[in-house]
Amino acid sequence: MKKTKIVNDPVHGFITVRSPLVYSLLEQPCVQRLRSIKQLGLTHLVYPGACHNRLQHALGATSLMERALDVLKSKGHTIDKDEFDGALAAILLHDLGHGPFSHTLELSIVDVHHETVSMLLIEQLNRQMNGALDAAIEIFSKRHRKQFLNELVSGQLDMDRLDYLRRDSFFSGVVEGMVGLERIINMLDVDDDRLVVEAKGLYSVENFLISRRLMYWQVYLHKTVLSAEHVMNMILRRARYLVGNGDKELFASPALAFFLNNRLNADEFAANPEALANFALLTDSDVECAASVWTQHRDRVLSLLCRMLLHRRLPRTELNAEPFEQWMVEDKKSLVRRKLKLTDEESDYFVCSRMVSNTGYSTAHNQILIKNRNGSLNDIYDASDMLRHSNFNEETHKYMLCYMKEQFFSD
Amino acid sequence: MKKTKIVNDPVHGFITVRSPLVYSLLEQPCVQRLRSIKQLGLTHLVYPGACHNRLQHALGATSLMERALDVLKSKGHTIDKDEFDGALAAILLHDLGHGPFSHTLELSIVDVHHETVSMLLIEQLNRQMNGALDAAIEIFSKRHRKQFLNELVSGQLDMDRLDYLRRDSFFSGVVEGMVGLERIINMLDVDDDRLVVEAKGLYSVENFLISRRLMYWQVYLHKTVLSAEHVMNMILRRARYLVGNGDKELFASPALAFFLNNRLNADEFAANPEALANFALLTDSDVECAASVWTQHRDRVLSLLCRMLLHRRLPRTELNAEPFEQWMVEDKKSLVRRKLKLTDEESDYFVCSRMVSNTGYSTAHNQILIKNRNGSLNDIYDASDMLRHSNFNEETHKYMLCYMKEQFFSD
Amino acid sequence: MKKTKIVNDPVHGFITVRSPLVYSLLEQPCVQRLRSIKQLGLTHLVYPGACHNRLQHALGATSLMERALDVLKSKGHTIDKDEFDGALAAILLHDLGHGPFSHTLELSIVDVHHETVSMLLIEQLNRQMNGALDAAIEIFSKRHRKQFLNELVSGQLDMDRLDYLRRDSFFSGVVEGMVGLERIINMLDVDDDRLVVEAKGLYSVENFLISRRLMYWQVYLHKTVLSAEHVMNMILRRARYLVGNGDKELFASPALAFFLNNRLNADEFAANPEALANFALLTDSDVECAASVWTQHRDRVLSLLCRMLLHRRLPRTELNAEPFEQWMVEDKKSLVRRKLKLTDEESDYFVCSRMVSNTGYSTAHNQILIKNRNGSLNDIYDASDMLRHSNFNEETHKYMLCYMKEQFFSD
Amino acid sequence: MKKTKIVNDPVHGFITVRSPLVYSLLEQPCVQRLRSIKQLGLTHLVYPGACHNRLQHALGATSLMERALDVLKSKGHTIDKDEFDGALAAILLHDLGHGPFSHTLELSIVDVHHETVSMLLIEQLNRQMNGALDAAIEIFSKRHRKQFLNELVSGQLDMDRLDYLRRDSFFSGVVEGMVGLERIINMLDVDDDRLVVEAKGLYSVENFLISRRLMYWQVYLHKTVLSAEHVMNMILRRARYLVGNGDKELFASPALAFFLNNRLNADEFAANPEALANFALLTDSDVECAASVWTQHRDRVLSLLCRMLLHRRLPRTELNAEPFEQWMVEDKKSLVRRKLKLTDEESDYFVCSRMVSNTGYSTAHNQILIKNRNGSLNDIYDASDMLRHSNFNEETHKYMLCYMKEQFFSD
Repeated sequence: MKKTKIVNDPVHGFITVRSPLVYSLLEQPCVQRLRSIKQLGLTHLVYPGACHNRLQHALGATSLMERALDVLKSKGHTIDKDEFDGALAAILLHDLGHGPFSHTLELSIVDVHHETVSMLLIEQLNRQMNGALDAAIEIFSKRHRKQFLNELVSGQLDMDRLDYLRRDSFFSGVVEGMVGLERIINMLDVDDDRLVVEAKGLYSVENFLISRRLMYWQVYLHKTVLSAEHVMNMILRRARYLVGNGDKELFASPALAFFLNNRLNADEFAANPEALANFALLTDSDVECAASVWTQHRDRVLSLLCRMLLHRRLPRTELNAEPFEQWMVEDKKSLVRRKLKLTDEESDYFVCSRMVSNTGYSTAHNQILIKNRNGSLNDIYDASDMLRHSNFNEETHKYMLCYMKEQFFSD
Repeated sequence: MKKTKIVNDPVHGFITVRSPLVYSLLEQPCVQRLRSIKQLGLTHLVYPGACHNRLQHALGATSLMERALDVLKSKGHTIDKDEFDGALAAILLHDLGHGPFSHTLELSIVDVHHETVSMLLIEQLNRQMNGALDAAIEIFSKRHRKQFLNELVSGQLDMDRLDYLRRDSFFSGVVEGMVGLERIINMLDVDDDRLVVEAKGLYSVENFLISRRLMYWQVYLHKTVLSAEHVMNMILRRARYLVGNGDKELFASPALAFFLNNRLNADEFAANPEALANFALLTDSDVECAASVWTQHRDRVLSLLCRMLLHRRLPRTELNAEPFEQWMVEDKKSLVRRKLKLTDEESDYFVCSRMVSNTGYSTAHNQILIKNRNGSLNDIYDASDMLRHSNFNEETHKYMLCYMKEQFFSD
Repeated sequence: MKKTKIVNDPVHGFITVRSPLVYSLLEQPCVQRLRSIKQLGLTHLVYPGACHNRLQHALGATSLMERALDVLKSKGHTIDKDEFDGALAAILLHDLGHGPFSHTLELSIVDVHHETVSMLLIEQLNRQMNGALDAAIEIFSKRHRKQFLNELVSGQLDMDRLDYLRRDSFFSGVVEGMVGLERIINMLDVDDDRLVVEAKGLYSVENFLISRRLMYWQVYLHKTVLSAEHVMNMILRRARYLVGNGDKELFASPALAFFLNNRLNADEFAANPEALANFALLTDSDVECAASVWTQHRDRVLSLLCRMLLHRRLPRTELNAEPFEQWMVEDKKSLVRRKLKLTDEESDYFVCSRMVSNTGYSTAHNQILIKNRNGSLNDIYDASDMLRHSNFNEETHKYMLCYMKEQFFSD
Repeated sequence: MKKTKIVNDPVHGFITVRSPLVYSLLEQPCVQRLRSIKQLGLTHLVYPGACHNRLQHALGATSLMERALDVLKSKGHTIDKDEFDGALAAILLHDLGHGPFSHTLELSIVDVHHETVSMLLIEQLNRQMNGALDAAIEIFSKRHRKQFLNELVSGQLDMDRLDYLRRDSFFSGVVEGMVGLERIINMLDVDDDRLVVEAKGLYSVENFLISRRLMYWQVYLHKTVLSAEHVMNMILRRARYLVGNGDKELFASPALAFFLNNRLNADEFAANPEALANFALLTDSDVECAASVWTQHRDRVLSLLCRMLLHRRLPRTELNAEPFEQWMVEDKKSLVRRKLKLTDEESDYFVCSRMVSNTGYSTAHNQILIKNRNGSLNDIYDASDMLRHSNFNEETHKYMLCYMKEQFFSD
């Protein structure tokens, strides 16, 4: 076995894997499965370059973690080998529980958040590896006594975010989303076991927050992406409906069929070993292949939804600061009902009105601490003259109405 | 309908689609299908970033075509609207006939080259579009009387190659594969209806040829990629064997099942409309989803091959200037037979010895003409002092031996 | 004469100069002079890559102008050839009046803002070119009746800023300063002769404003840059003092000597043709060469300052939200006086306390108008939920204290 | 004093200076002087972005050296602290002896190669630093017993070349010159104290050689650059002629004046401490400032040449595989003589016919050794099927004729 492995990453350049633990984790089937899960779900329908997968991101975040830990050590903070490897493993494995198309179908295949699934898979791995992931589990579950290790995996400035923002910017071509991750990592420090940022890094952190906001609205919550996500969710809902109504022959891989037949909540999922086993087999291809087959299905609702998605004949989406009025929604439904000769219930699949939130970057529960030259600490919302009086910190809501375009019916 | 569409491509920046013909082609299901076919097949197993798809490439090549045509027009060459649109459509559609994982499975699913399938699909489209693709077909089939249009689609310096080299370099992170496409495109000219390059562009064309060569050996024919491709081909061979031997229940999408049940040559394919219809439904996900299901199949050969691929436990590959001796091959086979308790026939799936050629960049049949200041023309092999005496122009052969690693058996 | 000229710009790629007017302007000595004036003055002392010059920037901004005008034309706005060329010429020439090291010595060589000098030089050119720059002058002086042309040259979203932010980010390596100029330019529109931005471009404009802010504090007003700028200004002040006190032999090029001997305000400058002639000869090299010679000068203040600058032994700089107290300033002065055995007056050159403002990005006088889908207009400070309640719009002041490091005396 | 210094380099990203020796060398005036010497002389007249300086390059090469030494150490080769620091210092200082505009004026200001001057300056520094540079001097003069250290500073694959090719490609915008330096550095190894490259790096090294060739002809020996370099050399020749003929008042900095008055060969230069002292003060600005003043000089030859250079009215240059015939040269001379009313001798300044060689990449004296899997070594000219039969290894000669354009006289 080679001592080190070098991976050529278009985002960070050559990544050298030095840790034997990381090396052996990369050989695990549940890690390799991340190759087949697109980082940004259906975003490539709008930004065609955004077809990168979760494995790249996991590897990239791991390499940033190594850099960050090296910076902290060079500033005099003790991080022993176990903690070092634990932090690397925790970030490498943090997304293990993502299902097909990442966030797109979250809660749609199983009623369980991906972090919960990640934890179940990491614990399973840990049993196979005789406790090699004990430290990683402490860190991943935010229970490590050196809080900064937890924060490097999941916090306002964690390596997850630094990697995904830079990577998503790179692959989508949204150049203005580029964050100054080298500078931020170099400015990291530890104070009383918490992660802090030297004051010199203030502008880079401001820029990071703004870039994240931009990426949210310009990419992650792009209205055409939302529209496609809606369609894919409706496809699964309809498939489950058909299965529930006796369609025994609906094409699906066994793993997908399991979840179409069983709608599990978190407790049921945790209690049923078959559920985790099936989940660990599911990738984008199970859903995509099924949707492709279903384009020929005799159920008009299902086949139409699948064709809309795969042929990119997506519904129109409007975003608004205020909720859409009910009559507008009804209007759209009645149009589709009339044009496509659908029942009331069926028309529900083709019109969607809901709230969209950028909860992802809200900082309510988690601070970024800025360390001044004199050693005192400030929350960034006090330290930054730009953010201080803004309402940047609040969650933003928009309202979305998604419905069929007129031209759709005329084609 | 909007007049223009702007697409954000990480490689070329903002691409503006101005041609209504291109716009309407982009809405065709058979074009959208290219989204689900990875440009570089299994290369992402070595270069994790290389997960880009054929649609991006088609779009990128189309945008380069527009630039090239604009350059030629600015140099005084007449290109009428039909020819302009025809060239754009021809390059957009040139890869329509690729099957799952692009070249990886070429001739493995059907015994037909992808260009042949492209032509069948373009002709089908043309019938639906009432002849709108007549010019594109002339160009794609190299029968247009303005030979340079044919050459821009398929020639030594076509827009296909310029795009894929730059794009594959970008996504794989192999920065030294970067070609100077802006310079080359600006140096294009036409002489007596043939595509030529101004002498000032000589070094860029040399560099382009060398970069292509580098990309071949470093990326396209990387030995680990060859190894993975071998495994995927063996998976399909075994699946077909099982189906041929009566496995009625082998999981597969209907489209994939069609080809597992029917091994068609070019004539049979062309004669059978069902074949084309099924092919047009096949994407990476059909194969990937099936392989994932087959990891659990009771046939040990099939399930083992699928696990090798999906868990990235790939065979070792050696490349050699000389063919491997038969006893070495037999040695490897007998080892795997003994270790895995296989029959002689079964061991065939796990050992492979064959020739690998970089035919892709051989220039035997197609020149690059350099136009000197005085208007005279030279083949680049005469014009370039570097290439003149080299054997660059020859096809290179290497020999590959692919077999199970010892450690594989001990795990 | 060639019809078009292609310039290879590392920032924007190949720039094609198509306008004969631009082509002939590029051949003017006063335009070529911009090659010898660094865009960012002394910033390369902190960011070594930032050694780009004003000519590159002028050319880059001109190419963005061409793109912007093309976008506006494609949206149905009439821009005739004169206006088109006028806008190109205006942006190409807008920085003609910069003196050595750009902003570093602004008001230090002559008491005239660079825009005023630009106008004098453009008018001089216009006379030589028989009025070819009439439209450019109207636009440059903000008197063109199509206000959006004026705004494209000088406004909140002018091509000057778009180019310099991207360029300065590129050369300094401050990647997070990268603005999404392709998106912004594509979102430009005209309403009632004013420049507006489509609502879809809102996030990119927000990002542009934040990036500009970041570039200000991280690069343009970096404290070590401020420190070097202070030293260079003191060098000129001392040289002028020596000349004023009878040093007839102080080394200087004739052009520099003219300004050391004559301190002109705007009126005097405009009235004296010799002044403009001399100014048009001055470049970075006049100042740099003199400073190099002066490192050997017998006046200790001058030679010390010159060595500090050229050997990069820069004073320490502190930035503060509040003004520094007078006793601190006096303290620093008394230290340098004692250590270097200077008079009170002489110590003034080595300590500096002043206010620093980022007036550059304050938007008090000039709006960015966002055009909603329904055609209504909003100021970006109303349109952006992020900026609305922030005090982003206000000019920020910091206070700077610049003084000799202790270690300086011990070397 | 800070322990480490981080420099933001647009080419390599954040560079961390960890070695105290490197840190203190960066503070030396003779190192800081490199800031004011453009890496590529007058190349920015063709590639406007190419205005980077020698200090950046020195720093970049030093950071690559650190990476290379780390790679070699990780492969088990012993490099002690003295050797490590010595190699860093040697590469940092290797270009110390460059004069104004780097190669442009080499042998024109003094008759001494820049390496010789570098050595004199390094030895001077070493005396000031009490022998801290002993190891660096051994390495720089190729006398270190660990030959690979010498080769890393000056050899076919030295850190100098890796940095300058990547950097010159970056700043000029000639993207196809990009070399895969990360891969090459990772493939470095040591065999019997010589630097070798693992066979896996073969294609990257081939690409490196081709990119270098491309950069030579496309950038370094671009004919317009040659033309400008000719003019600058003629300016110095004329200035020296005027000084030699009694022009006591020709404007020049004292350091430049010294060399106009004294034409020294290597022995004279080494014997005269004043010569080295003056040389160490000379930068681009001495020459540029003088040329600017001389545009107004009463000697028509001098002022014309200076205006040609500074206003970029450059002579036309032709490159040819064969020498130009004498009558063609005479023809051009007689034209300029007639048009400008010059003497025979004076016309010599305006016409130039000479040989141009790309000696830079000839590998006659220095191999690149490829280390095969079995440990055997091959010269790359045997290992590479592409280079084996090419005449790549030979020095290429072209012939250049440089003369005034017709339009020049008509302006």
